[in-house]
Amino acid sequence: MARKGEFALIDWIRRRSRFGPDVVIGIGDDTAAVRPAKGTLTLLTTDAVIEGTHFKRSEASAYRIGWKAMAASISDIAAMAGVPRYALVAVALPDGLPMKWARDFYRGLRAVADKFRVGIIGGNIASWKGGVAATSTIIGECKGAPIPRGGAKIGDVIFVTGALGGSLMRRRLRFLPRINEALALRKAVKLHAMIDISDGLSLDLGHICEESGVGAALYESEIPVSPDARRAARKSGKAALQHALTDGEDYELLFTVGEKDAKRLVARPPFQSPRLTPIGAIIKRGMYLQHPDGKKSILKPKGYEHFT
Amino acid sequence: MARKGEFALIDWIRRRSRFGPDVVIGIGDDTAAVRPAKGTLTLLTTDAVIEGTHFKRSEASAYRIGWKAMAASISDIAAMAGVPRYALVAVALPDGLPMKWARDFYRGLRAVADKFRVGIIGGNIASWKGGVAATSTIIGECKGAPIPRGGAKIGDVIFVTGALGGSLMRRRLRFLPRINEALALRKAVKLHAMIDISDGLSLDLGHICEESGVGAALYESEIPVSPDARRAARKSGKAALQHALTDGEDYELLFTVGEKDAKRLVARPPFQSPRLTPIGAIIKRGMYLQHPDGKKSILKPKGYEHFT
Repeated sequence: MARKGEFALIDWIRRRSRFGPDVVIGIGDDTAAVRPAKGTLTLLTTDAVIEGTHFKRSEASAYRIGWKAMAASISDIAAMAGVPRYALVAVALPDGLPMKWARDFYRGLRAVADKFRVGIIGGNIASWKGGVAATSTIIGECKGAPIPRGGAKIGDVIFVTGALGGSLMRRRLRFLPRINEALALRKAVKLHAMIDISDGLSLDLGHICEESGVGAALYESEIPVSPDARRAARKSGKAALQHALTDGEDYELLFTVGEKDAKRLVARPPFQSPRLTPIGAIIKRGMYLQHPDGKKSILKPKGYEHFT
Repeated sequence: MARKGEFALIDWIRRRSRFGPDVVIGIGDDTAAVRPAKGTLTLLTTDAVIEGTHFKRSEASAYRIGWKAMAASISDIAAMAGVPRYALVAVALPDGLPMKWARDFYRGLRAVADKFRVGIIGGNIASWKGGVAATSTIIGECKGAPIPRGGAKIGDVIFVTGALGGSLMRRRLRFLPRINEALALRKAVKLHAMIDISDGLSLDLGHICEESGVGAALYESEIPVSPDARRAARKSGKAALQHALTDGEDYELLFTVGEKDAKRLVARPPFQSPRLTPIGAIIKRGMYLQHPDGKKSILKPKGYEHFT
């Protein structure tokens, strides 16, 4: 896209933007300015979606890539049980990319942003000889303490939302970040540690264990394996469970709570869908997979591998 | 860089990071969390520096590219007369890039960030088959109203800091954003409109005029032409003035103030270096260049052209 096209695109976006009174300066200036809500912490996260690593342009529509670029970043706010408020989106686009592609990409961004009342208040557009690279930065708010990765305690029960694995088939370009679920959980119980599963269950659990200085045991039979993980398994020849443990890009919530709160969540889950499943326990050290026959094997934190 | 290298790099960065008590959660979690200062607006801006468009990897060191990536974004906070506080940096790096390159890049980022007490509290690292693309997001604060592009009034005097043109020779990879100058100006006078010159004097003046619904006349003989613009002119065969008007990446401040404040700034400039120069006046409409013989010609908002 030539420089002129970039300015035209910014104008096109600007005409589609309406913000509340909290946005003092929105799109079209050097920086945006917002009035922070009183008594809140500001949450800040940035994530990139890049061609060849996270998607192939021949296989995913501009709308879906935009959707994912926004949803993946908002998911990091969900992992903190925060409320997303604003987004800045920087894109590097290949020279000569049709304006229609860029508009559809923006429509995908907006579709997710609008669902969570997130204002796209700024960004950057550049053209180059490389592929599509989109960086979304989300600014959120949190009343009370954010939920870190490092808060897991020995004896905690490990929960996960939804079902895992096989996201490459569909989910990774269509998921909705678990913002509402995280806020409902925060209201219902005391969350000790939380993360969104982007790298894969075993690797993200590894992050929680490392930051918390603890270990974990997962009950093999309790791990919710998604229908897409089973479909992926038929193609790959691997076990569906392996897909659930290592595929990544599920964008489900993985969290730990104390025993009493765990019982409460099982007895009266704060939402019916997605499913809420206790899948293991926090232990002193090491990561294990506990099999139905009582035996256990070492669980290696193995993660998302780029698909190209 | 393989996934493992990314985690190692994050650890390396984390060990080098120390934050004040305002940073509740820093590097190593899903999102960062900060406590906003009371009675301030939050400023948000994002900017990208990408290979082939903004630099060639064969011609610029990793350190200089990091420097520029941080400085260019902080410059957008200067344009608002704000105080930069935090940075998030997302990089896409070519597969197989040496870890040393990434570390030197970070050292460049930090060199600028440290000068302005900006904490690099988060980011993202991804590898791909493409070139280097770095996106820096800066979160700043502003007491009182930020200075928009759209506040210029007819009769205002147009000022610029420093000297312009030829930044390709040196300045664009070495400049320090004019944060301190912007804050000193804000304290001394009532700034009506301000922008940092990234696209080039004539194009950035065009942005001010468009957003303010006004025109501008520049006095040809008053425009501060940099020694590098003269050097560039000897190479290009164009006039040095043309370089000053259109080169871009000067990252100087272009602003307008009322007539009384203009006199004050000329009589008692709030700083001696960089130079503060009145270069024109805001008029009703159109953009003109006024020549020493009294004649005037139309000034086209012509901007920065990618050097590749």
